[in-house]
Amino acid sequence: MSSLRVHNFAVSLDGFGTGEGQSLEAPFGHADQRLMQWFFGTRRGRAVHGRSGGSRSVDDALAEMTDDGIGAEIMGRNKFGPQRGPWADEEWTGWWGPNPPFHTPVFVLTHHPRPPLEMEGGTTFHFVDASPEDALAQAREAAGGLDVRLGGGPTTVRQFLAADLVDHMHLVVVPIVLGRGVRLWDGLEALEERFTVESVTTPSGVTHVTFSHRGR
Amino acid sequence: MSSLRVHNFAVSLDGFGTGEGQSLEAPFGHADQRLMQWFFGTRRGRAVHGRSGGSRSVDDALAEMTDDGIGAEIMGRNKFGPQRGPWADEEWTGWWGPNPPFHTPVFVLTHHPRPPLEMEGGTTFHFVDASPEDALAQAREAAGGLDVRLGGGPTTVRQFLAADLVDHMHLVVVPIVLGRGVRLWDGLEALEERFTVESVTTPSGVTHVTFSHRGR
Repeated sequence: MSSLRVHNFAVSLDGFGTGEGQSLEAPFGHADQRLMQWFFGTRRGRAVHGRSGGSRSVDDALAEMTDDGIGAEIMGRNKFGPQRGPWADEEWTGWWGPNPPFHTPVFVLTHHPRPPLEMEGGTTFHFVDASPEDALAQAREAAGGLDVRLGGGPTTVRQFLAADLVDHMHLVVVPIVLGRGVRLWDGLEALEERFTVESVTTPSGVTHVTFSHRGR
Repeated sequence: MSSLRVHNFAVSLDGFGTGEGQSLEAPFGHADQRLMQWFFGTRRGRAVHGRSGGSRSVDDALAEMTDDGIGAEIMGRNKFGPQRGPWADEEWTGWWGPNPPFHTPVFVLTHHPRPPLEMEGGTTFHFVDASPEDALAQAREAAGGLDVRLGGGPTTVRQFLAADLVDHMHLVVVPIVLGRGVRLWDGLEALEERFTVESVTTPSGVTHVTFSHRGR
């Protein structure tokens, strides 16, 4: 069975996975870039912006795992864009330009379906109004035996954790206090009992915490 | 000037410093012993219960710092005992038996003052209805030039952090999701800007995070 995996998912000390006030100018709201500073200096973080160089550090090694063996992604609508409610227009094609970094089918969870969007480089966005279980079944079928990445945001990750659908989660605890935003942990009491948990701190100051499901 | 220091203060991934439902039988509520597991195997953790042995580990080195140069403690009433409101009787003398492990004056913050309690071993509990600033002034005077420890619980630590009175904080992030209890971080947005922050993970699985005030 293919796995459902979360990678490079950053949270603050107070458990916010993104800030308050997401907009076109501020994809992470008032959190701005602070949850992802650890990532920018890595080889992977530079490659995402088309630049060479960067560290081959522990941060980088963990960041690089995100693509390995992935055949599809699931994301929440708020990761796809800042709009809420019915689509005002269908011109928005995501934050990532004409060639998004996914290169697989991507299932965007929304109560407002729209036709699929075929992008350059192998990414196709499918807009689905489905339960976590049904979305995962669709993504697994599209992944052709490979794993499925759960891309966020925090509300989506929380829903899939609550439904016990996540097999692996790589979390990054950033030592900042955001104070407001979208919480990851609500309703997940005793989550750790289902997982083997490992932690490692790196010189960037963050703590990588990996959750590997015990039963799978 | 003497410093105000927090030591060995554990929080869950979701930011709870203690569980829900504190009682005589459950000083940490439903969190039970889970926030302090990292501590029990250390030399210090064993010594607290009168036992020898234990690790001379990184966990222990950090745990041991708590007594160094301390001349007084401040604690919230909920650390002192499970009672709320007016004291039903004054027979309660804390969780720690006739010889508490403080061996200094201890200032217990409460809206219901009562006469001081002189215990064995140098501990005297003073019950004060005071602002954080005033309680700290009293504790500093009693400490005779030594530092003051801020002993918790989470509500008390949060109030002193909000008033920018804390000079050093040793926090222990435990990779569990408590789900409910008393939150440490509420109202402390951008706390990290006032501190130099360092993190280290140990084999017990926790992450020690030290906050050293930049301006002092």
